[in-house]
Amino acid sequence: MSSNKIYMTQALKKAWQYQLRTYPNPAVGALILYNNEIVALEAHQKAGTSHAEVLAFISAYETLSAGEIDFDRFDAHKAHEFLYALPKEFFSECIIYVTLEPCSHEGKTPSCASLLAELKPKKVVVATLDPIEGHDGGLKRLEEQGIELEVGVCEKEALELLEPFLIWQKRAFVLFKIAQTSNGKIGGGYLTCKESLTHVHQLRSVCSKMMIGGNTVRVDRPTLDCRFTGDNAPDIIIYSKEDNFDRDISLFSVNNREVKITNVLKIFDKPSFIFIEGGEGMINALKDKIDWFLQYQAPKLSSHTSSYSIDLNLEFLFQDKRGVDLLLWSKIDKE
Amino acid sequence: MSSNKIYMTQALKKAWQYQLRTYPNPAVGALILYNNEIVALEAHQKAGTSHAEVLAFISAYETLSAGEIDFDRFDAHKAHEFLYALPKEFFSECIIYVTLEPCSHEGKTPSCASLLAELKPKKVVVATLDPIEGHDGGLKRLEEQGIELEVGVCEKEALELLEPFLIWQKRAFVLFKIAQTSNGKIGGGYLTCKESLTHVHQLRSVCSKMMIGGNTVRVDRPTLDCRFTGDNAPDIIIYSKEDNFDRDISLFSVNNREVKITNVLKIFDKPSFIFIEGGEGMINALKDKIDWFLQYQAPKLSSHTSSYSIDLNLEFLFQDKRGVDLLLWSKIDKE
Repeated sequence: MSSNKIYMTQALKKAWQYQLRTYPNPAVGALILYNNEIVALEAHQKAGTSHAEVLAFISAYETLSAGEIDFDRFDAHKAHEFLYALPKEFFSECIIYVTLEPCSHEGKTPSCASLLAELKPKKVVVATLDPIEGHDGGLKRLEEQGIELEVGVCEKEALELLEPFLIWQKRAFVLFKIAQTSNGKIGGGYLTCKESLTHVHQLRSVCSKMMIGGNTVRVDRPTLDCRFTGDNAPDIIIYSKEDNFDRDISLFSVNNREVKITNVLKIFDKPSFIFIEGGEGMINALKDKIDWFLQYQAPKLSSHTSSYSIDLNLEFLFQDKRGVDLLLWSKIDKE
Repeated sequence: MSSNKIYMTQALKKAWQYQLRTYPNPAVGALILYNNEIVALEAHQKAGTSHAEVLAFISAYETLSAGEIDFDRFDAHKAHEFLYALPKEFFSECIIYVTLEPCSHEGKTPSCASLLAELKPKKVVVATLDPIEGHDGGLKRLEEQGIELEVGVCEKEALELLEPFLIWQKRAFVLFKIAQTSNGKIGGGYLTCKESLTHVHQLRSVCSKMMIGGNTVRVDRPTLDCRFTGDNAPDIIIYSKEDNFDRDISLFSVNNREVKITNVLKIFDKPSFIFIEGGEGMINALKDKIDWFLQYQAPKLSSHTSSYSIDLNLEFLFQDKRGVDLLLWSKIDKE
């Protein structure tokens, strides 16, 4: 593996930590090298806040100046303003690796391509071009500034990272969550570690809608809020033919939440991020709609009798640790 | 993460690909940088053959000279001889990362420390010192040559990699294999991919003894050979109180194999590598003896009813892909 690929792989790994949490933005990672030392490794964390490149330059500034900034680095306007005001040439010996072409358009945040054109790093290495029409053109702007460019390093992996983003341009991206022991046993209270539970709440806080099965509501009586992160609870769709639920359970009493009960699936046609938690019945009912699975595997074997009983071929996409647990991202193999 | 750690992590990952396959040697990985480009990434593959550092220098030679060697690189004597004959200074701009202190003693293969002292790379970065008394001293020899040294990069991870090696100095290291779907279902013919099956046979070919349960012999009637790698089949211990096995099954007819039937466990006291394949009964019977688990997870959910039914806390050590499968190394959490 070349050094280029190794650095890009680090940026990709960092981006996967925020996969889906940037909805409706893509997950993007960035790494900065100075004098062959890594001086920054960052990822875009949340839509409306600073992009990966901006966080990376701020972090590189801190490393290289051995100082700390005194403003909110996630405030993109402040961060851009700060970087624009640095002495020219500050980053002229830096190489930046970005998993996606820097954005050329001004949205909620200023354009990263304009920023990079001004900061003029020695070289910009990009895994893949921006696939959205009208969002491309970032690299052209850098080229005009005479910045050395390299495109296509780890492109396949970068496109896998981008898949949810590409899907939710056209229709709902659908993620199904499974929490289990390492030998596939489910149920019996919290299985996974605090870091995994926090991650679930982070996903709940950004999804368009959460969907659960009627049986889960009846049996588990869940609240489905985001208390581990302090965020607003997601709107809920209970996938059920019948509306016979006990309205006294906490699910229905969360503030500012909409709960809808339906078995009509046209919601999946709308560009959005649908997050499903449920049992095998839900997988069976929705397997044509599910794009990806996210398995949290707790480090234990269990004699518990419950497990998902369903036949489905998957393709493993990315695996990582979260606290002591294993996080395993996969997609349904539709071939 | 610093560049040093990233390079060492690559060397560790490479070494994990050969974890246990180097028995009775430790798993070791090495990476060589030239002009900040990776020119070699290698691991020790099999006891009695060239060590990681030697394979890395050979591979770096090929990269830097854009040529190919014309002898067996795994023949340590030939490889050392070749490297000694290269022009002095050939590697003088190289930095080598090794997960373990280069060996100072002459065993089946010549000393790597002597070789490095002669090749004089610019810098040697080592994750951890050789923990075996009498095997240390490698670094001292390099220091005497004025080679720049750095020790302790990713030391915790390097010690995890070394754990089996440290255990089999004193007693048996015991690995239990589990092949399952991603949701923990077992049985029903081959579950895992060809690359995983080959890996199992690679482990069988180097273990001191394979151990299986009496029930597995009676029900599955396995052969337990190494036909995917062409190696000799391992000796078998059938863990059983009774000797009532059908001697016509292929297990008993493999050439040059010893099959022993016993329920006496003193074999575990002897420095060795015991590889267990079996059902939950075997885990239950031997859980005080098992050190590590190796799970092969096939990328599928299955409705099969069989799964391991046992309660055991684990600690995940390392996860990797093997073909389309996930390989998950863990140890029993004995706290």
